[in-house]
Amino acid sequence: MSTQKPSIPKGTRDFSPIEMNRRNFIFNTIRSVFEQFGYQPIETPAMENLNTLLGKYGEEGDKLLFKVLNSGDFLSGITESELTRDNAAALSSKISEKGLRYDLTVPFARYVVQHRNDITFPFKRYQIQPVWRADRPQKGRYREFYQCDVDVIGSDALINEAELLLIADQVFGKLGIDVIIKLNNRKILSGIAELIGHADKITDITVTIDKLDKIGPKKVNEELAERGLGAEAIARIQPVINLQGSNDEKLSTLSELLRDTTDGPKGVAEIIEILSLAKIMNISSTVELDLTLARGLNYYTGAIIEVKAADVAMGSVCGGGRYDNLTGIFGLPGVSGVGISFGADRIYDVLNELNLFTTATASTTRVMFVNFGGQEEKLSIEMASKLRAIGINTEVYPDNTKLKKQFSYADSNRIPWVVIIGEQERIEYRCILKNMATGQQDSMPMGEIINHIIKV
Amino acid sequence: MSTQKPSIPKGTRDFSPIEMNRRNFIFNTIRSVFEQFGYQPIETPAMENLNTLLGKYGEEGDKLLFKVLNSGDFLSGITESELTRDNAAALSSKISEKGLRYDLTVPFARYVVQHRNDITFPFKRYQIQPVWRADRPQKGRYREFYQCDVDVIGSDALINEAELLLIADQVFGKLGIDVIIKLNNRKILSGIAELIGHADKITDITVTIDKLDKIGPKKVNEELAERGLGAEAIARIQPVINLQGSNDEKLSTLSELLRDTTDGPKGVAEIIEILSLAKIMNISSTVELDLTLARGLNYYTGAIIEVKAADVAMGSVCGGGRYDNLTGIFGLPGVSGVGISFGADRIYDVLNELNLFTTATASTTRVMFVNFGGQEEKLSIEMASKLRAIGINTEVYPDNTKLKKQFSYADSNRIPWVVIIGEQERIEYRCILKNMATGQQDSMPMGEIINHIIKV
Repeated sequence: MSTQKPSIPKGTRDFSPIEMNRRNFIFNTIRSVFEQFGYQPIETPAMENLNTLLGKYGEEGDKLLFKVLNSGDFLSGITESELTRDNAAALSSKISEKGLRYDLTVPFARYVVQHRNDITFPFKRYQIQPVWRADRPQKGRYREFYQCDVDVIGSDALINEAELLLIADQVFGKLGIDVIIKLNNRKILSGIAELIGHADKITDITVTIDKLDKIGPKKVNEELAERGLGAEAIARIQPVINLQGSNDEKLSTLSELLRDTTDGPKGVAEIIEILSLAKIMNISSTVELDLTLARGLNYYTGAIIEVKAADVAMGSVCGGGRYDNLTGIFGLPGVSGVGISFGADRIYDVLNELNLFTTATASTTRVMFVNFGGQEEKLSIEMASKLRAIGINTEVYPDNTKLKKQFSYADSNRIPWVVIIGEQERIEYRCILKNMATGQQDSMPMGEIINHIIKV
Repeated sequence: MSTQKPSIPKGTRDFSPIEMNRRNFIFNTIRSVFEQFGYQPIETPAMENLNTLLGKYGEEGDKLLFKVLNSGDFLSGITESELTRDNAAALSSKISEKGLRYDLTVPFARYVVQHRNDITFPFKRYQIQPVWRADRPQKGRYREFYQCDVDVIGSDALINEAELLLIADQVFGKLGIDVIIKLNNRKILSGIAELIGHADKITDITVTIDKLDKIGPKKVNEELAERGLGAEAIARIQPVINLQGSNDEKLSTLSELLRDTTDGPKGVAEIIEILSLAKIMNISSTVELDLTLARGLNYYTGAIIEVKAADVAMGSVCGGGRYDNLTGIFGLPGVSGVGISFGADRIYDVLNELNLFTTATASTTRVMFVNFGGQEEKLSIEMASKLRAIGINTEVYPDNTKLKKQFSYADSNRIPWVVIIGEQERIEYRCILKNMATGQQDSMPMGEIINHIIKV
């Protein structure tokens, strides 16, 4: 066996202990808030049957699926005449029946339909697992990354939407990130399109209005004209473009404006109710009605939610909404759901940029005992066991080697406390406790270590 | 898009909330003990380059690798003449460059070599991730399953071995499973082989001695003869076959017996030292010297460790040992390591069989508020927020529907407490608290819920 220079596939990553501890800080925070609100975990296999995945993400998405070669003789059942270079597409579906999960939504839909007889609805589930996409890797875009999805399906109640706003509020509150939660409703967008007589142009309208901040109202109107809206339609949409003020003011204007449309009033009423429920739940983040918010428009049927970090110019860190036909493709129509998804990698970048990773997230180990060998080693081992027994993560440096090397180990592993038991200390049943952050060393009776470590 | 009957690839599994909560109980226990001893997490990608994986698991292992089809035009670079049915093996390595992780050991070795300049040795890492094997699925054998590995590399000290015994002791102690930890040492096995003049027959000898319990000493001696040991060799090995008594007695016999062999005395001394260190650390499980323990013999160079549940007839739930050349294949020779691996699926089965999954592991949700709509709903939402704020996972049933349906939801989701706030209760600022396990209902002032839930 020859020596290889080791590497990993492009677009994938190894995570070192320090990265893992930071990532776990994010995942644990998200998970604890999901569970606070009664959501329960599920997991699905990394590999799904390709017929579960194909056709669910558009033509482009199909190309980005990682396909797994059938095991055993993968060419069995293939005729020589099928085995030609220009038959690659057809061939690939014959030699691979499985693919790697592309997102958590389709596997969730598949799960719900497959297990519908065992599920008590409403079904509140969360799922934190990696997904794989054969995208061209670039800064911030990977071929393997985690998604953190939380959804409730089988309930139309708006309390669910309000709770999801609270979940976002709590997650980012615990992470220490100030966020603005943007809220919209597909029914309002439908109302606007109806109002101006262009139900077919919802997407054009929202995409254009989205540019308001960047290009100003004049250019927005020009672009709306380019996209096929007549002068009358553009005139009627002006109150929407010029919509300003507090959520209450906006909602009051919209309520008036959309009064005679089919869906508009329902959309306004839903937003009012959601905001009112979120208030009862004591939400602290700013929730902002934003009519330009349209993400996944063809998919969402009610609330649309997006969360942005207030102090960092970065895309959304969380988003989602209500959908009405998630499970239809697998034969279970008419199940309404609402959910949001957190982007762990982007949250990591935000925390990093805002310098919010504390030393507490650097290591899970609190204490290291220096190793002098002999009787001192044995006493250190004994003391370390005692610290562990009361829940303090503790290690003993395994080798009796140079002190400098031992301290440099503690340092690079971000261990906050080092305990030194030399011969003199052992005899007097004392120890020296070093605070690695400040460099301060204190000699104390053995029994006092615990007080110091817990107190400081 | 036609309706599909959804399914998942054979040998893979979905995990429902109740299964997830039980599995998380296992993983969290393992993780917390790993961290107690100063081990830090890493993660590696699901896909590795195939040249990292191939040739590491033997010919049989190579066949069990899941290979990932190259993305894009996977046939580009393949000539028509290569594209023939009888060229399947060569073809597969040209159309797939990546494979799914088969275990955590080879990716760990790859990681260490790839990042050796960033790692401070000794490197204490743990890794809890799924692996994939294209094995024929059967009861208890899956194509996707989790491994939980903990290893330290770059340290020869026997304190590491002792700590690993303690890790096993603590994990199973916390899980409530009585275990027997079996300990052996490759150097003792080498000594025995040397003693009887058959250094080449270590494997034959240990495999045969392993059957002692089942077939008795007479048949063992017959089989040793069949496997090519002469009468003199068999005579010399009798003290080993008849080895009995406490660890101390066995060690004393072995010490005498192997006195003149090259490796034997070192193996005995190592076991004595490991047992002594484990005692200082206050180990509570039985540790048993077992000369028939040989798992992965060609791999281990020192201690060999295996853990079995005491009260269930099941294979090992944990095992490992010391190895001396994990990273050699990737160009970094001479790095010694020691580690053990926990089998989560088998631990799950043991807990299940022993009825050790408590209701506490069934759900992370503690309280559900019944939903009567209107003012009662709003008050319930407010109270639920207060419970969450003090760390009690709480949900409000989202819809104002039949009480029976709401209770059956709480029941099937194993939520231990249900709070009922009807009109009368709202007016009097009281509530009814129902203990779902006992069925008992108590009316109380609103402020007292917390005491009851925490107390009971």
